[in-house]
Amino acid sequence: MDRVTAYAPGSTSNVGPGFDCLGIAIAGLGDYVTAERGEVLGVRVFSVSDARIPKDPARNTAALAAAAVLRRAGAEALGIELTVDKGLPLAGGLGGSAASAVAGALAASALVGRPLAPEVLLECALEAEAAVAGRHPDNVAPSLLGGAVLVLSVAPLRYARLVVHPRIRLVFAIPDYGVETARARSVLAEAVARPDAVAQAAALGGLVLGLERGDGALLRASLVDRIAEPRRIPLYPGYPQAREAALAAGAFGAVVSGGGPTLLALVPEGREAGVGEAVHAAYAGQGIGVRLHVAEVDRQGARLT
Amino acid sequence: MDRVTAYAPGSTSNVGPGFDCLGIAIAGLGDYVTAERGEVLGVRVFSVSDARIPKDPARNTAALAAAAVLRRAGAEALGIELTVDKGLPLAGGLGGSAASAVAGALAASALVGRPLAPEVLLECALEAEAAVAGRHPDNVAPSLLGGAVLVLSVAPLRYARLVVHPRIRLVFAIPDYGVETARARSVLAEAVARPDAVAQAAALGGLVLGLERGDGALLRASLVDRIAEPRRIPLYPGYPQAREAALAAGAFGAVVSGGGPTLLALVPEGREAGVGEAVHAAYAGQGIGVRLHVAEVDRQGARLT
Repeated sequence: MDRVTAYAPGSTSNVGPGFDCLGIAIAGLGDYVTAERGEVLGVRVFSVSDARIPKDPARNTAALAAAAVLRRAGAEALGIELTVDKGLPLAGGLGGSAASAVAGALAASALVGRPLAPEVLLECALEAEAAVAGRHPDNVAPSLLGGAVLVLSVAPLRYARLVVHPRIRLVFAIPDYGVETARARSVLAEAVARPDAVAQAAALGGLVLGLERGDGALLRASLVDRIAEPRRIPLYPGYPQAREAALAAGAFGAVVSGGGPTLLALVPEGREAGVGEAVHAAYAGQGIGVRLHVAEVDRQGARLT
Repeated sequence: MDRVTAYAPGSTSNVGPGFDCLGIAIAGLGDYVTAERGEVLGVRVFSVSDARIPKDPARNTAALAAAAVLRRAGAEALGIELTVDKGLPLAGGLGGSAASAVAGALAASALVGRPLAPEVLLECALEAEAAVAGRHPDNVAPSLLGGAVLVLSVAPLRYARLVVHPRIRLVFAIPDYGVETARARSVLAEAVARPDAVAQAAALGGLVLGLERGDGALLRASLVDRIAEPRRIPLYPGYPQAREAALAAGAFGAVVSGGGPTLLALVPEGREAGVGEAVHAAYAGQGIGVRLHVAEVDRQGARLT
C-alpha cells in the first residue's frame, strides 16, 4: 500500500464531573490524515488544510504519532508524507489534536503494513498528544476506540469503555472565539475542598450510570463539574446564559467541552433542535456567534477510509 | 397490630473511592427493633441488647427514627416502646446506628398502621442518624433499600441504586477494637489535591461499573480511596498488613468499612475462605483478634419479620 487515509472522530472530554478522566467520541466531526510513502526518511507533513496547523513534525500531533508508530513497528527506514485535513476546529475543545494524532497513528500503521494492536496505537497517539497538550488520554482513547471511555489511570494506562445509551444526543455549540488548552489549565486550583471532591466523585458515578442507562433524572443530577468549571467560567463569555437556556429547553445538562469554549448539551432524542435553537439564541443575545453540531456518539472510533 | 418487629441489615459505606457517597447492604448481619404499644405518650426504649447502647430516646437512633415516623404520620398521640436487639457491633463501621434507625422507623410505621412511603422512611431514619453521626445517607439508604446505593446529593436527597453483580462476595474482618465515627472524621483534611480529586472520581466511576459488571480488572483498578484512608490509616492497627494479605489471596480489593476499623474485602465467589484466612492471619500477626463475616449483598433491605 502506497497511500492510505485514516479518519478519527473528534471527542468531547470532561463531560462535567468527568474532568480529566472521561471522553466521548463524536459522530460526524473529525480529522482525516493521509499517509504516503516518501523519499525522505522519517515523517514529513506535506500539507495541512488550515495554515494555523504547524507543519513542523515536532509540533504536529499527526506527525508525532506517525513517528511513534514507525519506532514501535521497527520501520524507521521508511519515509512518510502526511496530509492533514482537519474537520475539527482549532482550540475548540473538541479533541482536535487528539483526533489528528489518532488518525496519524492509524494511517502510519496501515502504511507500514504491520498493523499494531489498539493498545500500541493508543500509546503512540498519547505520546503525540502529550508533546503538545499534556498526557491526558481522555480525548485520544475515545477517538481511537469510539464510544465513551473512562480513564482510571494514566501510568499505567487503565480505562473502562462505556456504552452510551442510544437515545442520548450531543448538541455542540462552537463559539466564534477560541481558548487555548494551556490557558484553560493555568486557571485551575491546586486543591479542591473535600466536600466538592466527594460531590465530584458521586456525580461521576451518577454520570457513568446515567450515560449507560439513558436515565434522565440521573443525568440531570450529575452533570455538574465542581473542580474545573467554576474557575474557568470567565474564559467562556456567553456560556452561563447558554447553559441555562439549554436546561430550560429540555437538555439533561450542559457543560464545557474539553478546555472549551465549545458547549456540550446532553439531550434526549427529539429535543436536539429545540436545545440547539435556545443555545444559539442565548449566545446571540451576548453578541457571540456559534456554529451548531448535533451528533450521536461515534461508536466505531478511528478507521481507514 | 400491637407488636411488630423489623429487621434492617448492616451496611458498609465508603467502599474505597465511594467515601461519603456509596454504601452496600450486608446479608446476615443486622439489627432487630420491636415496637409495642405503650401507655406513655411518645417513644421509649424498653430494652437494649447491649448496655452500651443509650436508652435515652434523644440519643438512640431507633427511638429518634420512630419519633420522626410518629410526627410524619400524625400519630403523636401514640405511645411506643422499643426493644433493640443489636446484631451489629458498636463503632465497627458496619452501619449499626443506621440499621437501628431504619428498623426503628419501619417498625414504628407498621405499628401505626399507616405505612409510609420509602422516601419518607428514609428521611425519618436519616434524621435520626444525623442526630448522632451527621447527615450521611450512605448507610441509611442501603440499609432501607438493599443493594448498593450511590448518594448524589444530601439536600435534596438524590441517589442511584446499583445492582451488584451476584458473583461478588463481601468478606469482613471485624477487629476487637472500636473506632468512633467522630474520631475518624476529625482526622480528615479540609482540602484534597486536584489530581487526587480527579483520581477519586475516576475510581468511583470504575467502581460503579465494576460492581454492576462483576469486572475484576475494573474493581482491582478502582478500589483505592485517596481522600479519607490515607489520613485514617494510623487509626487502624493491622489494617495495612491485612489489606496486602487480602490482595495476595485473590481479593479484588480491600478497604476500610465506613469509619472503621472493620476491613472489607471484595472477593470473587469461591475465594471467600482463602481471603478470610489470610486476613485473619495478618491481623493475628499484629496481635489483633478479628471476627470474620462472609456475606453476599443484602438485596432486600429492611423488612418486617
